[in-house]
Amino acid sequence: MSTTHDAEPAVPSGAAGSVRPGPDATAGAGRRGGVACVLVAAGAGTRLAAGRPKAFVPAAGRPLLVHAAEGLAAAGAVDVLVVVVPAGAERATEELLAPVAGLPPATVVAGGASRQASVAAGLAALPDGTGVVLVHDAARALTPPAVVRRVVDAVAAGHGAVVPAVPVVDTLREVGGRVVDRARLRAVQTPQGFDVAALRRAHAVPADGEGATDDAGLVERTGVPVHVVDGDPEALKVTTPLDLLLVEALLARRGAARAAAAVGTP
Amino acid sequence: MSTTHDAEPAVPSGAAGSVRPGPDATAGAGRRGGVACVLVAAGAGTRLAAGRPKAFVPAAGRPLLVHAAEGLAAAGAVDVLVVVVPAGAERATEELLAPVAGLPPATVVAGGASRQASVAAGLAALPDGTGVVLVHDAARALTPPAVVRRVVDAVAAGHGAVVPAVPVVDTLREVGGRVVDRARLRAVQTPQGFDVAALRRAHAVPADGEGATDDAGLVERTGVPVHVVDGDPEALKVTTPLDLLLVEALLARRGAARAAAAVGTP
Repeated sequence: MSTTHDAEPAVPSGAAGSVRPGPDATAGAGRRGGVACVLVAAGAGTRLAAGRPKAFVPAAGRPLLVHAAEGLAAAGAVDVLVVVVPAGAERATEELLAPVAGLPPATVVAGGASRQASVAAGLAALPDGTGVVLVHDAARALTPPAVVRRVVDAVAAGHGAVVPAVPVVDTLREVGGRVVDRARLRAVQTPQGFDVAALRRAHAVPADGEGATDDAGLVERTGVPVHVVDGDPEALKVTTPLDLLLVEALLARRGAARAAAAVGTP
Repeated sequence: MSTTHDAEPAVPSGAAGSVRPGPDATAGAGRRGGVACVLVAAGAGTRLAAGRPKAFVPAAGRPLLVHAAEGLAAAGAVDVLVVVVPAGAERATEELLAPVAGLPPATVVAGGASRQASVAAGLAALPDGTGVVLVHDAARALTPPAVVRRVVDAVAAGHGAVVPAVPVVDTLREVGGRVVDRARLRAVQTPQGFDVAALRRAHAVPADGEGATDDAGLVERTGVPVHVVDGDPEALKVTTPLDLLLVEALLARRGAARAAAAVGTP
């Protein structure tokens, strides 16, 4: 229903917030255990140049993080939320999330120096009984709830690693090389979904020096195949001011659609 | 200044409109001859589902094609324009373009069954004395004039084929395969610029069955290296309703910026 701020033994010491597994925490994905989501909101947002961490940049008056949390709440498929934020922003985050209707029990923890370290901090804060874990970027603030449900359903159906993805519309060219056949490519979004044991194993493997990859890439290195489900163009990641402009426009359109529905306009 | 509708011998018979090379038609790129632009506006726009050819879909009340033409006019780097539209739309297009301030002398011709055929129709309508040809998608309606100038300048500097491109921000994954290293990739935009002889040679080579590619890809097959200059996120291609929403938002922002400048608001 809202974030909880009281002490709770299930949270590793050092976590700034706390988690209280809700009554559905072990029911969401049937026999696979509860569904948790690690919501990563620890990025600096340098390219956005908004003077604050990206997840806290407002769109239509509310931080991207709050929009992302609302989308997760609307999906109705997540039992527990772990929000990873820059160190020092924990309490402010709890206050931002408290009013979000329908939010699963949530805890807020401090992130690390890299995205991977931040996800690991989130994993460390998962409650016992978690069977499925989603890893979601708060910068994909307007991810439609249907995308969240598709990912959860695919993991619950037995896929150890699931990513939502969309076709590539741009013509791509290798630097100093040839045009790439975009028909063979998909642009990967979040939330990515995993069997929690598979993701924990993947994060325990030392990096192989091939550079950053996403969580699905980490899991894939351990031999778990990655299953792809349909993403959605509205699950775009806010990286540049142009992306933020599009998010604002989408929010305005959604607001207009809601208003029209409320007054019975066709 | 505006489109011209009178007969003109330099236009091959069969072209629907006509072209009158302006006084700068052979001066724009120095000793390389004039700069022409083939503006391709013949696509159906199926994914946009707007009930009309994509280039004629309005944004902020005016067709994408008109916005694209305004951008070319503002660049001040194009001497002659050839607009390729669906057969039957030639006269309507001339009327749409007539009021565009600063537009180079323009002709309008009917396109073919494929994008490549449409570009070929545009090439056939280029006036004598053309040294540099740009091929531009009307769906990249808000391409900043600076991008147009960068492409023209690079061709004038001796590069036989030039494309504007931007870094890839999405995580990409091969279908049934691995994560792709996006650092090695660029997303290619338009206008693409060419030595006119190189592009004509490339279009004369039969397709090799590798499927559709862009004009730079065609030229590359003939052994001409492709030079990359900086593109711009605002040169996005309108393909889906989401893209159109972003273009509308960009136009609103540009309008607000112009209004603020007009009244001296900081």
